[in-house]
Amino acid sequence: MSDYTLTIKTDEKKGVLDDITYIITNHEANISYTHLFIEKNGVGSINLELEHVKDIDALIRDLKNISEIKSVELHGSQFDIYGKRIIIVGGGAQVSQVAMGAITEADRHNIRGERISIDTIPLVGENDLAEAIEAISLLPRVHALVLAGSLMGGEITKSVKKVKQESNLIVISLNMPGSVTEYADLIITDPIQAGVLAVMSIADTAVFDINRLGENIKY
Amino acid sequence: MSDYTLTIKTDEKKGVLDDITYIITNHEANISYTHLFIEKNGVGSINLELEHVKDIDALIRDLKNISEIKSVELHGSQFDIYGKRIIIVGGGAQVSQVAMGAITEADRHNIRGERISIDTIPLVGENDLAEAIEAISLLPRVHALVLAGSLMGGEITKSVKKVKQESNLIVISLNMPGSVTEYADLIITDPIQAGVLAVMSIADTAVFDINRLGENIKY
Repeated sequence: MSDYTLTIKTDEKKGVLDDITYIITNHEANISYTHLFIEKNGVGSINLELEHVKDIDALIRDLKNISEIKSVELHGSQFDIYGKRIIIVGGGAQVSQVAMGAITEADRHNIRGERISIDTIPLVGENDLAEAIEAISLLPRVHALVLAGSLMGGEITKSVKKVKQESNLIVISLNMPGSVTEYADLIITDPIQAGVLAVMSIADTAVFDINRLGENIKY
Repeated sequence: MSDYTLTIKTDEKKGVLDDITYIITNHEANISYTHLFIEKNGVGSINLELEHVKDIDALIRDLKNISEIKSVELHGSQFDIYGKRIIIVGGGAQVSQVAMGAITEADRHNIRGERISIDTIPLVGENDLAEAIEAISLLPRVHALVLAGSLMGGEITKSVKKVKQESNLIVISLNMPGSVTEYADLIITDPIQAGVLAVMSIADTAVFDINRLGENIKY
């Protein structure tokens, strides 16, 4: 049983996804991610990441029997290509410095076979940031979050607490005023170092294990 | 008719997604994005972005009738929260500099109500890069791609050409040896400026219109 990614081109018609999920369920495979969009030429494109597929050839054959389906293409998964994600949120000045540390460090690991993406959004304001942090669970492949700001508390802290309860997300915070640091796994003063450590904490090619540091440690 | 995002918590059981898509099809709504994962406590979490929903209350009521579904939560879409994405790919040295320009510029637009994310992967090697560029279509919300390297051609160029044919993606390339610049909308020598212009080319808050520059212009 293996994991596969399929790109299916179809006529844009309601119910096609329903037909597709019905066939996948019949093959007892799981869908872990889908993304749908309409191409320039009006053709619908459906990307599916599948887990626990027993017989991919039989599955593709059954999918091709749906009359609206034009083609089914098999390729590497998003996880294989873009790998683990680190999300950096906060003010532009800090986010750009953390990103610089993280991208430079990710480059060193990706050269050795890792796949780590560094994704960012410069965003300020208590409610907007709280909403973005809570919505981290909507995003696929996120392994670590870096809080790159100068002052974060209140609703932002509540969001960080909720995300930590629901997932194994690693949270690294810059050293800053505000209650958000109470829920971080690691608090770092230098933004470049925060970016480097975020990558090291999720890289299989690194010897660093954040769990050996203890909780809520400040540097 | 409106767009909504639902987070559905369910018992992890094969066929639940099939039941959900069946109900959504019956309500004549479209699914534009889904992401599924298992929480720490073993509960399945399904995020659905829906388009053209006629009666969201009736839809939620019908979903809650599925016996495996524990809760249905309505909230802002990924697009509302994380907005348009710029993807920067290439070597770490260049990617980090383009990211710095893009993050700093995105900060200025996001403060004025935009939502622009700057997402990156430091990646080298002709085939790995070609695969990552071709897979851009697997990622949601991508509006621009920046090729941040020192030498790109061959398979990478073929991928850029294919992506340009299938989508309206804006492609900005650093000025470099290699055929990849032939298919870029804009070729920029300074990486900081390339990042700034990538943001300006997709920001509604910017007065810059890349289509007014003509094709394949070099700076």
